[in-house]
Amino acid sequence: MNIDILAPWNRLARENVAVGFVDTLLRGTGQVMFQNNPITGLLFLVGIFYNSYQLGIAAVIGLLTSTVAAMVLGADRNLIRAGLFGFNGVLTGIGLAFFIQLQWSPVLVVYIIFGAVLSTIVFMALANFFSTWDMPALTAPFVLATWLFLFAVLLFANLHTGVLVNPALPKPNAAVYPILRPSPTDLTTGAGVTVVNLLQSFFRGVGEVFFQNNLVTGIIFLIAILINSRVSALFAALGSIVGLVTAQWLLGVDGYATYIGLYGFNGVLCGIATGGVFYVITWKSGIYALLCVLVGTVVMASLTAFLSPLGMPALTAPFVLTTWLFLLPKAGFHVLQPVALAEVAAPEQVRRAFLEKEQALPRDTLPTGQ
Amino acid sequence: MNIDILAPWNRLARENVAVGFVDTLLRGTGQVMFQNNPITGLLFLVGIFYNSYQLGIAAVIGLLTSTVAAMVLGADRNLIRAGLFGFNGVLTGIGLAFFIQLQWSPVLVVYIIFGAVLSTIVFMALANFFSTWDMPALTAPFVLATWLFLFAVLLFANLHTGVLVNPALPKPNAAVYPILRPSPTDLTTGAGVTVVNLLQSFFRGVGEVFFQNNLVTGIIFLIAILINSRVSALFAALGSIVGLVTAQWLLGVDGYATYIGLYGFNGVLCGIATGGVFYVITWKSGIYALLCVLVGTVVMASLTAFLSPLGMPALTAPFVLTTWLFLLPKAGFHVLQPVALAEVAAPEQVRRAFLEKEQALPRDTLPTGQ
Amino acid sequence: MNIDILAPWNRLARENVAVGFVDTLLRGTGQVMFQNNPITGLLFLVGIFYNSYQLGIAAVIGLLTSTVAAMVLGADRNLIRAGLFGFNGVLTGIGLAFFIQLQWSPVLVVYIIFGAVLSTIVFMALANFFSTWDMPALTAPFVLATWLFLFAVLLFANLHTGVLVNPALPKPNAAVYPILRPSPTDLTTGAGVTVVNLLQSFFRGVGEVFFQNNLVTGIIFLIAILINSRVSALFAALGSIVGLVTAQWLLGVDGYATYIGLYGFNGVLCGIATGGVFYVITWKSGIYALLCVLVGTVVMASLTAFLSPLGMPALTAPFVLTTWLFLLPKAGFHVLQPVALAEVAAPEQVRRAFLEKEQALPRDTLPTGQ
Repeated sequence: MNIDILAPWNRLARENVAVGFVDTLLRGTGQVMFQNNPITGLLFLVGIFYNSYQLGIAAVIGLLTSTVAAMVLGADRNLIRAGLFGFNGVLTGIGLAFFIQLQWSPVLVVYIIFGAVLSTIVFMALANFFSTWDMPALTAPFVLATWLFLFAVLLFANLHTGVLVNPALPKPNAAVYPILRPSPTDLTTGAGVTVVNLLQSFFRGVGEVFFQNNLVTGIIFLIAILINSRVSALFAALGSIVGLVTAQWLLGVDGYATYIGLYGFNGVLCGIATGGVFYVITWKSGIYALLCVLVGTVVMASLTAFLSPLGMPALTAPFVLTTWLFLLPKAGFHVLQPVALAEVAAPEQVRRAFLEKEQALPRDTLPTGQ
Repeated sequence: MNIDILAPWNRLARENVAVGFVDTLLRGTGQVMFQNNPITGLLFLVGIFYNSYQLGIAAVIGLLTSTVAAMVLGADRNLIRAGLFGFNGVLTGIGLAFFIQLQWSPVLVVYIIFGAVLSTIVFMALANFFSTWDMPALTAPFVLATWLFLFAVLLFANLHTGVLVNPALPKPNAAVYPILRPSPTDLTTGAGVTVVNLLQSFFRGVGEVFFQNNLVTGIIFLIAILINSRVSALFAALGSIVGLVTAQWLLGVDGYATYIGLYGFNGVLCGIATGGVFYVITWKSGIYALLCVLVGTVVMASLTAFLSPLGMPALTAPFVLTTWLFLLPKAGFHVLQPVALAEVAAPEQVRRAFLEKEQALPRDTLPTGQ
Repeated sequence: MNIDILAPWNRLARENVAVGFVDTLLRGTGQVMFQNNPITGLLFLVGIFYNSYQLGIAAVIGLLTSTVAAMVLGADRNLIRAGLFGFNGVLTGIGLAFFIQLQWSPVLVVYIIFGAVLSTIVFMALANFFSTWDMPALTAPFVLATWLFLFAVLLFANLHTGVLVNPALPKPNAAVYPILRPSPTDLTTGAGVTVVNLLQSFFRGVGEVFFQNNLVTGIIFLIAILINSRVSALFAALGSIVGLVTAQWLLGVDGYATYIGLYGFNGVLCGIATGGVFYVITWKSGIYALLCVLVGTVVMASLTAFLSPLGMPALTAPFVLTTWLFLLPKAGFHVLQPVALAEVAAPEQVRRAFLEKEQALPRDTLPTGQ
C-alpha cells in the first residue's frame, strides 16, 4: 500500500534530478533507523526541527555533505540512492553540534563538514572490510567520525566541548539513584515509577536515536517508522521498553538518565536491526532480538564507564558493537535465518519472500527454527 | 592409553543423553586449557570447589548456561560436544562472581546467566569472523562478555564491584617493590626469593587461569592437564616459570602480584596454545612458544596499566591478544607448521600425524624448520 | 636515473651476502617513509645520528633485531630484502629509548630487542590478516609493539618512563595557547607566526617521523626522500604544511606542540602513503591525499586526548588509523585507482605503468577519474 502512495513521487524522483537528490537525502535520514522511505525520513527531520532548529541545521549540513562527498568520490549510484551515504552524515552533524559548545561559528561549520566527509569515507572503508562476511557497517562510521573529531576538541583553542563533557574517574562506591525522575538533581519532585514518567522515558528513548530529548519528537519518530514497517515500529517500541525495564529494574542505573531515554535509544536500534531487518522475523529471532536489546542496554552502561575518564559519550557504539556480535553468528545458529545484505528490505517483505521460497522447497529440506 | 581408560565412558556418553550432557560440560571445562578430556575437566572443577564453593557454583552456572544456550540456538552439534561453548561460560561465571561483590542475590545470578549467554553468542560471532584465517577465538568471548558486563556495574545501584576494583591514574614515579612476598603490604615477613615462595608463585600461576589463588588448586590443575597431554603439562609449567622469571627479574613488577600468580596465568595459556596445540611441537616452535609467554607477561602489565583508570582487570586478554599475534603469521614463518583448526587435538597426536605425513613425502619437498 | 647510479651497488648486494645484508638494513630504514632505496635509508640514519647518537644506536639495535628475527623465523626472502621487516624495528628501537628514561642499562637493551622481535611477529600477523583486502600493515606493528612494551613500564621497578609521560585527565576548559613558539612555557620570546617559526615547524614535522625534533634532521630527511621520488618528497612537504595549517588555524592546538612538529609527522606519512604510493597519483587522488592529511592531523589530537589518562604518546597511530580508513574504500570510489600491494613502487613508476595500461585499453572501457 505504501508503495502505491509513493509511486508518483518515485517516478518523479527517477525523472527529475533535483527531486531525485531530495529523495536521496530523505531516504538517507530514514536509513538511520533502517527505513528506506522518503516520508519516514521527512518526518524524522520534522521531529528534529520541532525539538531544535539548531540541531536540525547541523543535521542537514551533515546530510548534504556526506551525500555530496559520496557523489564527488564516485561511489556506487545505487548505494547513494538508497541513502546509505546519508545516515551517518546526518548523525555526525547532530552529534558534533550537540557535544561541541553550540556557538555557531564558521569553524564549527567547517568542522562538521569535514566530519561528515570522513563519515562517507569510513562508510566505504567498513563496507569493503565487512563485505568478507556480508555484514553491515551500521552507524559505526558516525561513531568513529564523531569520536575522532570530538576527542580532539579537548585540545583545541578554536572549539570547545559543551557542559556534557566532564572527564572523571569512575567511583565504584558512589551512590546511584535509580529513581525515575525529570531532574538530574531533584530526587523527589515528579519522581517515581509513574505512568507519565514511563511514557516520557519510552518516547524519549526513541527520540534520543537522533539526540532528541523530547517527548513529541519521539512520538513523531515512532509514527514515521510505522508508515514504512509495522514490524520495525513494533521492535523500536519493544527496544525502548526492554531498555527501560533493564535499566530501571535489572541494573538500577541513574533514574534521570533513564528518564531522558539514554538507556532506550541503543535498544531501539538493536531491536529494529535484529528484529526483522538482518534476520527473517520469526518468534525465535524476535526473542533473540530482545536479548540483543538487553545486552545493548548493559553495553551502554559499560561504554559510558569506559569513556568516563575522557568524559566522552558512547553515542550509538553500544548498538553497533552489540548488533555486530549478534549478527556475526549468522547461519551458525540454526534457529536464525540471516538476510543477505543485498536482500535487505522492509521486514514484512523479507519474511514474505522467505516463506515463499520455503514453500517451494520439498518438505524434508526445510530449515529448522520455523 | 588415556583413550582406553575413557572408552567405556565415551560409549556411555554416546548412548545416554544425560551422560553425554555431563561429558559435554566436563569437556567444556577442560577446554579452558585446550584439553578436550572429561577427566581433566572434572579435576578442574574439583580444584575450583576446593578453593571456593561460591566460585565453583558460579562456574557451574556459567558452564550450564552457555552450553544450553548453544543448544537452544541450534549451534553445530560437534562443536557443542567438544565443549567449545562451555569454556567461555565457565570463566564468565567465575569472572563476574569474582569481581562483583560476592553477596549472592537473584540479580547476580540473573546477571551471570545473561553474561554466559552472551559468551556463547560472541563465541559463534568470533568463530565466524576468524574462519577467514582459520584462527581460534580463544577465550576472547569470555574477556569481551565479562568486560562488557563488568565495566557496566560501575554505574549500577543493584550490583557493585568488589574491593579489587580501584580506578586510579597510573603514577609513573611511584615506588614498585618487586620483593616476592605473600602479603600485599608487609615487605619483610616471609618475603624474598625462597624455594617456598617460588613454588607458591609457580602453582598459583596455574591456578589463576580460573581465578584460583591457591597452591593446592594449582597442583590439581597441573595433574589434570598431565592426564591428557604431557606436552601441554610441560608448556603449562614452562609458561608459569617463564612468566615468573620475566616478571621478577626482567621487569621487576610488584612482588605480591607475582607471588599470587598474576604474572603466571597468561603465560600458562600462551605456553599451552603455541606450544603444541596450534603449531606442531618442535624445538623451534617450542622456543617460539616461550617467546610468546614472555611477551604475554609484558602485555599483562601493559593491559593492567591501560585499564587502571577504570580499575578493571585484564582477565585473559593478554593471552588472547598475544597468542593471536603469534598465531596469525601461520605459514608465513617457515620454521613453524601451523595446525588447521579442524585438526587440533592433543599435541602428541598432532605431532605424530605430522611426522607420518612428512615421511610419506619425497625428500626434496620436505618443509623446512625440522 | 637513480636506477643507474644504484646499479653497481645493487649488483654487489646480490653477489655479496654482507653487502646484501647492509642493503636490506638501509632499505628497511627507507621504508619508514615508503622509500625502498638504500641511499634514502642511509641518509635517514645520518639524520638521526646527527640529532642524537643515543637514539641512533637504539634505532640500529631495533633495525638489526627485527631483520634478523625475520630471517631466523624463515620469513619470505623477497619481503625481507625489500626492508619490510626493518622499518617497524627501527621505529620500535627509537620509540622505546625515547619514552623510557634514557639510562643505558642492559635491561633497556634487552627490552628493545624483545620489542623489535615482537614488531617482526606483528608485521607478519598483520600482513596475513590484511591480505584478505590486499591492505598494507603500515607502521601498525611499531605502534602496537611499542604501546604494549611502553604501557607496561608504568608498573616496573627495573625500567621507568621518562618525563614526557604524565598521566592526567583531560581538562575541557583549560586554556590552550596556539601561539607558535619554541618554548613550552614562554609565550612571548620568539613567539608568533614568523617565517622562521613556520620553517622550523615545517622541517621538524618531517623529522618527527623518527622522533627527531631537529631542523637539520628534517632537511636531511626531505632530501633523502627527494633522491628516490619527487612525488613522495612533494607529498611529504605538503603533509607537513597541511598538518601545520590545520593545527594552527583550523583547530588552534598548543603552539609549542605545533612548533616542534608534533602535528606534522602523521601528516607527512599520510601524504606520502595516499599521495602516489597506494593510489595512482592524479589530481583527484592528490586532493584526496590532502584530505587524509587534514583528518590525520585531527586524529593526532584525538588519540592524544584518548591516551592522556595514561600519559602515553599516540606515536604514528593517527597515520595508521587514518590511512587505513582512506585506503580501505579502494575501487569503491571510482575517482581513485588503488595500487595492488605487489605493484607498489615509486609513485612515478606506478603512474607510468598505469598510463601505459590505460592507453592499451579501448576508449570506452577507460576508468573514470582521469
